[in-house]
Amino acid sequence: MSGQMNSGRRNTTAARDLEEAISRVDSENLGQEMMDLMARLFPICRSLTGDGVRETLNILSDTLPLKIDQVPTGYQAFDWNVPREWNIRDAYVKDSSGERIIDFRKSNLHILNYSVPFSGTLTREELLPHLHAKPELPEAIPYMTSYYADRWGFCLSQNQLDTLPEGPFEVLVDSTLEDGQLTFAEAILPGSSRQEILFSTDVCHPSMAHNELSGPILTAFLHRLISPFEHRYTYRFVFLPETIGSLVFLTQNGDHLRQNLQAGYTVTCVGDAGPYTYKRSRQGTTAADQIAEHCLRYLGSSADVVIKNFDPSTGSDERQYCSPGFDLPVGSLMRTMYGEYPEYHTSLDNLDFVSAEGMAGTLKAYLRMVQLHELNQTYINKSPYGEPQLGKRGLYPTLGAQAESPDAVTNIMYLLSYSDGSKSVVDIADLANRPAWTFTSEVQSLVDSGLLDPVAG
Amino acid sequence: MSGQMNSGRRNTTAARDLEEAISRVDSENLGQEMMDLMARLFPICRSLTGDGVRETLNILSDTLPLKIDQVPTGYQAFDWNVPREWNIRDAYVKDSSGERIIDFRKSNLHILNYSVPFSGTLTREELLPHLHAKPELPEAIPYMTSYYADRWGFCLSQNQLDTLPEGPFEVLVDSTLEDGQLTFAEAILPGSSRQEILFSTDVCHPSMAHNELSGPILTAFLHRLISPFEHRYTYRFVFLPETIGSLVFLTQNGDHLRQNLQAGYTVTCVGDAGPYTYKRSRQGTTAADQIAEHCLRYLGSSADVVIKNFDPSTGSDERQYCSPGFDLPVGSLMRTMYGEYPEYHTSLDNLDFVSAEGMAGTLKAYLRMVQLHELNQTYINKSPYGEPQLGKRGLYPTLGAQAESPDAVTNIMYLLSYSDGSKSVVDIADLANRPAWTFTSEVQSLVDSGLLDPVAG
Amino acid sequence: MSGQMNSGRRNTTAARDLEEAISRVDSENLGQEMMDLMARLFPICRSLTGDGVRETLNILSDTLPLKIDQVPTGYQAFDWNVPREWNIRDAYVKDSSGERIIDFRKSNLHILNYSVPFSGTLTREELLPHLHAKPELPEAIPYMTSYYADRWGFCLSQNQLDTLPEGPFEVLVDSTLEDGQLTFAEAILPGSSRQEILFSTDVCHPSMAHNELSGPILTAFLHRLISPFEHRYTYRFVFLPETIGSLVFLTQNGDHLRQNLQAGYTVTCVGDAGPYTYKRSRQGTTAADQIAEHCLRYLGSSADVVIKNFDPSTGSDERQYCSPGFDLPVGSLMRTMYGEYPEYHTSLDNLDFVSAEGMAGTLKAYLRMVQLHELNQTYINKSPYGEPQLGKRGLYPTLGAQAESPDAVTNIMYLLSYSDGSKSVVDIADLANRPAWTFTSEVQSLVDSGLLDPVAG
Repeated sequence: MSGQMNSGRRNTTAARDLEEAISRVDSENLGQEMMDLMARLFPICRSLTGDGVRETLNILSDTLPLKIDQVPTGYQAFDWNVPREWNIRDAYVKDSSGERIIDFRKSNLHILNYSVPFSGTLTREELLPHLHAKPELPEAIPYMTSYYADRWGFCLSQNQLDTLPEGPFEVLVDSTLEDGQLTFAEAILPGSSRQEILFSTDVCHPSMAHNELSGPILTAFLHRLISPFEHRYTYRFVFLPETIGSLVFLTQNGDHLRQNLQAGYTVTCVGDAGPYTYKRSRQGTTAADQIAEHCLRYLGSSADVVIKNFDPSTGSDERQYCSPGFDLPVGSLMRTMYGEYPEYHTSLDNLDFVSAEGMAGTLKAYLRMVQLHELNQTYINKSPYGEPQLGKRGLYPTLGAQAESPDAVTNIMYLLSYSDGSKSVVDIADLANRPAWTFTSEVQSLVDSGLLDPVAG
Repeated sequence: MSGQMNSGRRNTTAARDLEEAISRVDSENLGQEMMDLMARLFPICRSLTGDGVRETLNILSDTLPLKIDQVPTGYQAFDWNVPREWNIRDAYVKDSSGERIIDFRKSNLHILNYSVPFSGTLTREELLPHLHAKPELPEAIPYMTSYYADRWGFCLSQNQLDTLPEGPFEVLVDSTLEDGQLTFAEAILPGSSRQEILFSTDVCHPSMAHNELSGPILTAFLHRLISPFEHRYTYRFVFLPETIGSLVFLTQNGDHLRQNLQAGYTVTCVGDAGPYTYKRSRQGTTAADQIAEHCLRYLGSSADVVIKNFDPSTGSDERQYCSPGFDLPVGSLMRTMYGEYPEYHTSLDNLDFVSAEGMAGTLKAYLRMVQLHELNQTYINKSPYGEPQLGKRGLYPTLGAQAESPDAVTNIMYLLSYSDGSKSVVDIADLANRPAWTFTSEVQSLVDSGLLDPVAG
Repeated sequence: MSGQMNSGRRNTTAARDLEEAISRVDSENLGQEMMDLMARLFPICRSLTGDGVRETLNILSDTLPLKIDQVPTGYQAFDWNVPREWNIRDAYVKDSSGERIIDFRKSNLHILNYSVPFSGTLTREELLPHLHAKPELPEAIPYMTSYYADRWGFCLSQNQLDTLPEGPFEVLVDSTLEDGQLTFAEAILPGSSRQEILFSTDVCHPSMAHNELSGPILTAFLHRLISPFEHRYTYRFVFLPETIGSLVFLTQNGDHLRQNLQAGYTVTCVGDAGPYTYKRSRQGTTAADQIAEHCLRYLGSSADVVIKNFDPSTGSDERQYCSPGFDLPVGSLMRTMYGEYPEYHTSLDNLDFVSAEGMAGTLKAYLRMVQLHELNQTYINKSPYGEPQLGKRGLYPTLGAQAESPDAVTNIMYLLSYSDGSKSVVDIADLANRPAWTFTSEVQSLVDSGLLDPVAG
């Protein structure tokens, strides 16, 4: 088999393999497998730093080969410094009868994340400024943090706060806040090109499911499904504590990404069955945006899809990737977005909030985007003067037809007409108002017949 | 009379003459005259090649002075070769009683166009693979072709097929398929500029009316109405067999058109009274598109107008003119478009499907487009600092008015304000939300008064 | 206090002072004060030239320090010449009993503006061609002019015309039309930059209120409210007779404005409480347009706002400023636009047609636009790699919040993300879908903290 044929075959091999990978999500019930992994990770008390992050990355290593790295407290990441490492063994508030009425062991959301150590006996009036509830969702324990200011506190439901006894209270926060490490991890699948696709997700949230165990779990499974086959792009999967983690990562990889990043996505809030929500990159018209929006246009009805402009005031690590000094092509494909559901950042964002169906649907959408990135090459029609005679190549029916062109002929005609070196397969699919992935076999036929040549680069 | 005045007068003379030509369509009842010519041409059995094309061109020569040309079988047109010439004298299927139950003499659509010669006696089972019907329109004989693969066949209504007797059947296809010629024709009306406007239409369809006797007949009458007066553009009218004909034409004229074609239109499906439909050129924003869309914006209600993006998977010879190697500014102004009516490519696309009113309406629309091309020059305001004082030139009422400006003053103000060398008359009419042809006399007044000068080129 | 802090403070000082100025409009009841001035100016018989213009400018000089200038009859302004100066002492039509049935002293609209002198006795038939009424508004005296053709005439209501007695009539037009002067005025508030903002208004209309005493009065008060504080732009306020006045002004200032005009507005029809109407400049996307449209987007409901493209066939002096030789960034912010209300250019456009509330609302809108021009600088984020750590600068809550970002944090995040030197504060406010004036204190905080630096120029 000649080199040219290999090269020809390679044009759409990844796209075909990804079609197969997409079908595996349902046939192998990967949604449930992701839910099982989530149940295992859910109880761990994660934070920006500390043992919870390390334990989480170790468990994820069962699914993909993670390279785990860390930087010490004080490490400078642009305008920031890595804080002290936080670990916690126990925390409670006991009432006057000695009963643990607020108990870290029941939910790690009860402790204000990054609380400094404390023990003592307090009156009700002394305790109250340290308690945080969410009146508008009275049954929920809110999730709160104080990474960069020293304080301690407890979170509890408004219902519980309303029935707090008189006191006095015995309070223990058995935490440590000491020089240590910030831990993060990545896995890379090298492709035939140095150009990269990035998936970035957070591992710093304690016991919450949609935001944010869904992100790291889906990212791990995405790696698992892409890893078996050959592909054009290099895929990079990173698992970080939010904000400070991505800033540390950018100190090490920012220049490389500015040169090589084709597209990236922050993977967050991907676990429920809500509407697919795409938040555009800061530039708004990058390859990341084109592929995500094309994909969503053909996933479900338009009522199920929300497209949002970049918003620097809220969000995940795309806020760092898209900061003006980097301005990377990074968007975020989600289901129900952070801040858009009442259970956000509370104990009600639990394992019931997400579903195998939701996880599987989003995983398939991410695979579809990978497929489109692989397929989305630009070609030149080598027979551009008039239409090539397709009949003699077996690409056109010889009996003059009555009805509309079959889909394959339509795809061929669009590919030939618009492959002038300025338009990619997805550009052309947009002109034809059809999903780009349906063009896979016609791209291959035209390359095989010598009518299309890929544009280098 | 000075040269300058002649030049001044010439600016809008063609636009005025075309206004007169438009009025002649109704006053001379040209719709009916076109229908009479169609009745004469309808019975002829046309195909890609052969005597039917030649007879058709000879009859059209009564209306316009055609230069008829031909190229031999085997002539290479880019990726294609001219096929053998096809002629047919008779064809039938006789039942066991000897009756011609499928009879070419009753409708030339009964024969699969380009059928190879055949005679023999067949059983029902042997005959059936050679019969073609259209179940979704059971009373219609479908129109089918097999130009590039050797086969024979008959077309018949589904109703007739359902009542086909048992057989045996005597079959005759008295055709010839031999080295010969492909015939086509053109007429040119030279203008003061080498820049060309192209009208291209097909002469290869057998007995169908809307698609496609309406196109060549309207094109011939368009020539007749434009030919009496002076004009700026050179007008070229070509009559071709579809696809292979336009490819042959492009081998001879492609380079010339790439340099000189200002705008072109494929004239097809122009005979019924359905909605005006404009299919854009591949580029989508050429002079052909601007003029056609401006024209349609003011023809009838918006419900009567359909604008379509270029679609390379269906259509007429614009598929060749707009192929990426040529990428010419060629669109297509139609009424009800091919493929959009059930009778398309069947015996029901007959003389009852079209009308004198429909033909006349489309002819007027084409004349309107010619008028706009002629009018659409770009001017420079020679008094650009403030408004010129129009009153002293008799172009403005001296009594300060209460009401809105009269239309003439509005046109003058728009022409003066926007004639900065970057905007043409149609651009300016678009800004004023008014039909460009209503600006004709104000353009002339401003040129006559020296306030507007045409931009060279 | 260091120079840098002064420079830092200066960034938003004008925006804050203007917020204060806006609040003064209501707290000091300036709407009523403007109405009082209008009542004083209303009876004066103004025209293109003459004592009425001079008296009007003298009275306006009580509100702002006007520099009054004049040019003589015959002065050439591009394609125009200043006409003779017109003054009028008295005019009437007496019936056969000697009663003044049409009386200039009752309404100066009764005289056709610029009527030549006349006295004599006329029959009814002789008089009628000199009488002008408005049948569609039978109770109104129309306002009509004949600046550039010598004639005399009277305007009267259709009701009065219908009951005109038999005559004979004694007619007097005690006017003079002699070589004299065309009078106009301006006031300038120099800023730290040579770049200018222009407000231009007309002083040539006799006794009408909305069009046009509202314009000069609002312009005078705008000067009064801006003059107390320091600002970046130089503000120029000009008071002119329409068309010929602005042409004369452009002969003297056109080149300067082409180099230095940042934005300008013709101030006309600003007195009623109708919808805010913005007529764009000819270019349509100038700084004048951006600021006006941003401002209107957040003033009242969208039903109260009308945006119009530039229309050279109607309007005020923007027709001269935007003529293609100048093409200045001049739009017009109005309430109910000229020509859009039946009382336009009649005696019914009187003091009852306008209101203190309408005048005050438009004045506040103009002040808002001035505020936005001052605020609308472009900055560079000096810490562009990732988000700056706002918490350590006191710009971010240290307790990780549940709810949405407070508005201040949202503004800060948008300013930091998009301040890359290509986008101004108003551009960024548009991206955030928020009024730009709400960003004032965050711009200042970020400049003070050294995170934003203004781009020079």
